[in-house]
Amino acid sequence: MSRGVLVAFEGIDASGKSTQARRVAAAHDALFTFEPGDTRLGAELRRWLLDASEPMTPATEALLMLADRAHHVATVIEPALMEGRSVVTDRFFGSTLAYQGYGRGVDLEALLSATSLALGALRPDLTVLLDVPVAVADARRAPNRADRFESADGGFRERVRQGFLELAATQPGWVVVDGTQSLDEVSAAVDVAVAGLAWNS
Amino acid sequence: MSRGVLVAFEGIDASGKSTQARRVAAAHDALFTFEPGDTRLGAELRRWLLDASEPMTPATEALLMLADRAHHVATVIEPALMEGRSVVTDRFFGSTLAYQGYGRGVDLEALLSATSLALGALRPDLTVLLDVPVAVADARRAPNRADRFESADGGFRERVRQGFLELAATQPGWVVVDGTQSLDEVSAAVDVAVAGLAWNS
Repeated sequence: MSRGVLVAFEGIDASGKSTQARRVAAAHDALFTFEPGDTRLGAELRRWLLDASEPMTPATEALLMLADRAHHVATVIEPALMEGRSVVTDRFFGSTLAYQGYGRGVDLEALLSATSLALGALRPDLTVLLDVPVAVADARRAPNRADRFESADGGFRERVRQGFLELAATQPGWVVVDGTQSLDEVSAAVDVAVAGLAWNS
Repeated sequence: MSRGVLVAFEGIDASGKSTQARRVAAAHDALFTFEPGDTRLGAELRRWLLDASEPMTPATEALLMLADRAHHVATVIEPALMEGRSVVTDRFFGSTLAYQGYGRGVDLEALLSATSLALGALRPDLTVLLDVPVAVADARRAPNRADRFESADGGFRERVRQGFLELAATQPGWVVVDGTQSLDEVSAAVDVAVAGLAWNS
């Protein structure tokens, strides 16, 4: 039995990545999962991470995200891949580098080293970045939502967006899809990007 | 106002480090604290970390410990030191290196890099290692206690003990006290070790 394919979707909030991740997972009978939080431990960490009332340094935030990722990889992603099942995840290591590294200023080299601790040798076969300008994302978002990340200033989200674009330009296996297009156009572009992968039949 | 002194006590379970840490803190009017767990977030992480029923990889364990440490440093230790208060902590970064690194085999270089993420530039002014052979610690421990770390095999605890001794030999600012001596003798040796520090009067 061959190993499954791992695809990650990344982007700022309201970029459309969750919609595309779910759609691609369904189309290829792959396991859909997400970070932070798609384990029992992860759900508790997610609650802490999104609770804007609990003061937390960027380094603490990054280490909790990485702990969540390590647990998610070990208990959900790796077992599925080993069984030959493909996996599509909504956010992965790119989000920690973009949000805590580029966004909050945590040292990128230290983050990359800690990322290796969390992932071991596992890397996605493909990472799809849904790119939209912050103003477009803002216009899409429901009012009155304000978790720790969404309540940060616009400069923060702009740094995160630019961080994602820099990752796409420098990390292996990333593609960028223009998320400002119509849903059909975005879906078509994503389908082209994932078509070459060895999805299990 | 001068900055307070930071002293860490390290050692395997039942080495006598907690007794000494509390005694030294009281003698010097310092804040006594501990890891993992002496914050609201930390208490939840401690519960997860000690719950032997929740399977967790060594890397996840290490990253949760480091997240706890980053939060503890930012919200408890640094604020006290800045106010001129001295701090005595029962366990610090040495425990992550000894337990998850030497004990569980997590890559030491990656752990040291992630430790810098958690601590920033902060390092203890002095780390006191209470060293006892595993057999001595075993004889002291109450029966029927079995958290994730205590329920590990004796080989694990021996690797942790040897890891602590190697840290003491290679890291700056560590002293080793023979924890097999009588309580009075251990206390006297610890008092000599901490006497030279600039405790606030």
